[in-house]
Amino acid sequence: MQKESNEILIISIKRLLRRGATKQLKNIIQKTHTVDLSAVFRELSTDNREKLFPLIETIEKKGILLSKLEENIFLEIVKTIKLENLVEIFDQMPADDAAELLGRLDEELSDEILKKMKTKGSEDVEELMSHGEDTAGSLMMPDFIALREDVGAREVIDALQNKFLDVEMPFYIYVVDEYEKLVGVSSLRQLVVVQPEKPLKEFMARDIVSVKTYTDREEVAKVVSRYDYLAVPVVDDDNRIVGIVTVDDVIDILHDSATEDMLKMAGVGDDYIETQTILRGTKIRLPWLFASFLGGIAAFLIIGGYEESLAQYTFLAAFIPVIMGMGGNIGTQSSTIVVRGIATGMINVRDFWKIISKELAIGLILGVFYGLFIGIVASVTYRAEPVFIPLAISVGLAVVASMSVAALVGSGIPLLFEKINVDPAIATGPFVTTAVDIVSVSCYFMIATLLLGI
Amino acid sequence: MQKESNEILIISIKRLLRRGATKQLKNIIQKTHTVDLSAVFRELSTDNREKLFPLIETIEKKGILLSKLEENIFLEIVKTIKLENLVEIFDQMPADDAAELLGRLDEELSDEILKKMKTKGSEDVEELMSHGEDTAGSLMMPDFIALREDVGAREVIDALQNKFLDVEMPFYIYVVDEYEKLVGVSSLRQLVVVQPEKPLKEFMARDIVSVKTYTDREEVAKVVSRYDYLAVPVVDDDNRIVGIVTVDDVIDILHDSATEDMLKMAGVGDDYIETQTILRGTKIRLPWLFASFLGGIAAFLIIGGYEESLAQYTFLAAFIPVIMGMGGNIGTQSSTIVVRGIATGMINVRDFWKIISKELAIGLILGVFYGLFIGIVASVTYRAEPVFIPLAISVGLAVVASMSVAALVGSGIPLLFEKINVDPAIATGPFVTTAVDIVSVSCYFMIATLLLGI
Repeated sequence: MQKESNEILIISIKRLLRRGATKQLKNIIQKTHTVDLSAVFRELSTDNREKLFPLIETIEKKGILLSKLEENIFLEIVKTIKLENLVEIFDQMPADDAAELLGRLDEELSDEILKKMKTKGSEDVEELMSHGEDTAGSLMMPDFIALREDVGAREVIDALQNKFLDVEMPFYIYVVDEYEKLVGVSSLRQLVVVQPEKPLKEFMARDIVSVKTYTDREEVAKVVSRYDYLAVPVVDDDNRIVGIVTVDDVIDILHDSATEDMLKMAGVGDDYIETQTILRGTKIRLPWLFASFLGGIAAFLIIGGYEESLAQYTFLAAFIPVIMGMGGNIGTQSSTIVVRGIATGMINVRDFWKIISKELAIGLILGVFYGLFIGIVASVTYRAEPVFIPLAISVGLAVVASMSVAALVGSGIPLLFEKINVDPAIATGPFVTTAVDIVSVSCYFMIATLLLGI
Repeated sequence: MQKESNEILIISIKRLLRRGATKQLKNIIQKTHTVDLSAVFRELSTDNREKLFPLIETIEKKGILLSKLEENIFLEIVKTIKLENLVEIFDQMPADDAAELLGRLDEELSDEILKKMKTKGSEDVEELMSHGEDTAGSLMMPDFIALREDVGAREVIDALQNKFLDVEMPFYIYVVDEYEKLVGVSSLRQLVVVQPEKPLKEFMARDIVSVKTYTDREEVAKVVSRYDYLAVPVVDDDNRIVGIVTVDDVIDILHDSATEDMLKMAGVGDDYIETQTILRGTKIRLPWLFASFLGGIAAFLIIGGYEESLAQYTFLAAFIPVIMGMGGNIGTQSSTIVVRGIATGMINVRDFWKIISKELAIGLILGVFYGLFIGIVASVTYRAEPVFIPLAISVGLAVVASMSVAALVGSGIPLLFEKINVDPAIATGPFVTTAVDIVSVSCYFMIATLLLGI
């Protein structure tokens, strides 16, 4: 439903742009949610984007739109905006969005914008930009509600209605002690239930989980989703609250990191977006295929070494695909289960031996099952050959060996990478495929030459 | 950090369980967040789980814990709880959690519990359970705040502090007209800013996005994450609000659906969890390998048809792995990009031709690149053979053909499935791999026999 209404919107806007109907365009833009507008921008040509952007009425909406666009479209539109207008837009933006967008610009331009922004705003933004990329510190919003332990419930409500009116997410009231250290949290809902005079320290929750400014964004997302928080407080090394990361950012992180993991495992880098050009797409994907190229060449050299055996029993070649395929597929199963298990916290590296021995067992059972099957196919097809029994046994055993080793390697490699703090997703894709290819081919020809007595 | 403190917790609890130190255990449980407690339960033996569960003090905490456990652990613990205690626990639970958990029990037991629950609670739960699984209706919370358009801001605040005190997520005030139809929404923050007498209709937001009771959960998650909502209203066919789905459920959905997509693409079904036993793991993974088994057998038959060519030029066999591998890997790249692109809304099926022609172009360029490389390797290795030039050309062309067709198939199959409303993730994994295997081998031998004049 959403999709269809967006399509109608895009078509109308394109038509109005062709006709140059500025007034109607302004009208439509005003009525459209910024998120839907960003979907429209994605579909427009560069020219049309340039025409449409200035028609957005408020500076605030321009800012929200910019923060919703993909990086390449954002950079393209920024080029068409005058510096003073950019400064205005960034002045209106929440500090966390501004910090993120400025980080995408080249340093010269972002410095210039920061210099011309209002002092308070630019300080907040620079503070955020000073934290490492992808940390809680770079994501957090600097406005939140923090009050002392001895403030009464009524006073808190008063403060909410006056002092904290512009706080965007007023769900949690953080409680600090006399040293400004975070000691508890209360919610809007609790405030209205307790007696007006009761001080925060008597009804606040004390089991509060916080993150540090340098905590990695994926860890932040884990905390928020684990505890069903709407926001998590960010503290410095002295446990003083300096900001909050809200659930909408966490949703973006979860989205991104699932996408990144999938792309890494498929060997497409970690930031591939479909809107990229053919040339850029080719450039990103080229190096990742190199691992499988090397694996293929290794398999080629191995098979080359068995040329005489192949000359004697040509039919050996016909089984190469099925043996490699079965190994490759169970390897992908195992590594996907482990990589995703690590990402979701279902798998703990502590259980290394337990996990890989279980995977090995599953590989072995499935290997015996499919090995039998393929062995039967081999013996039936080549029943006229004198060596059809050792052939069938070789092929079957090769499937068993290839599938169990593949399950072992597929689960072991990501676990090992996690142990040495290398991202298991990025390392696993090419490694596992290549390793499994080489192992499968080697096993097959070793077993076959042995059993066929070549 | 989180992880380490959990490990210490688990070790302490195990030790106390061995010593039978009931009092200390109760003490620890009381201080531990339910989420962390659920992590402990995951690590305990069945016996210890049975011992620990009754030590949880409040019925409410028991309920929250049950709703945080994995399905198999939940079912195991439920067996050890007396019916009357179960009823008590379900009576205390939020209706959406109760509905979800009851759905996991066998019908007889869940009917019995529902019969014994308090009337109001069981009605809410049964209402939720009546909606299709994985729809907004089955996920929603039936308590929310809805008021008429003409209610003034002050009155709304009063209602919040009295009538709606037990609403769990009081962030949005939904506004309905005289027919109870949803017409707008206001936030807590707006309420305190406007003049006390102003009626809702004068300051509410009208561009409200809602979902139907039968909207699929993944669509619900898309709406919430797209618009950065904390909750989305669920309406019936007459646009009357019947519940809300909150952001914490959406995070769970996003997590689950990313996991499901990854598992489906790897060919492991959609609900594989690592905690499963070897036997169950084997059973789930067995059928998914059947597709690659069939692909392998097809490749085997194809190669078998070229036995004479192979007998003449044995070295042809050595190139099978690299040609299949390059095709397989670029196919995985393309299908992952498309499947994830569809899931995140970055790719629209409308652009079918644009996407597959782009992928084909990328496949072609990468194919020429790696084809040249592999052709050179072939000609250098077999420079002593009289046919080394046509051999190198065949191998290179086969790589070009295999990689471009794989990119085409890898992107086209998920798009086609999406078009006919079949889940692209589940269909893509086995299909793409199998199709690419068959195509690669066929291309290779066709080109080789042609050029080598066999």
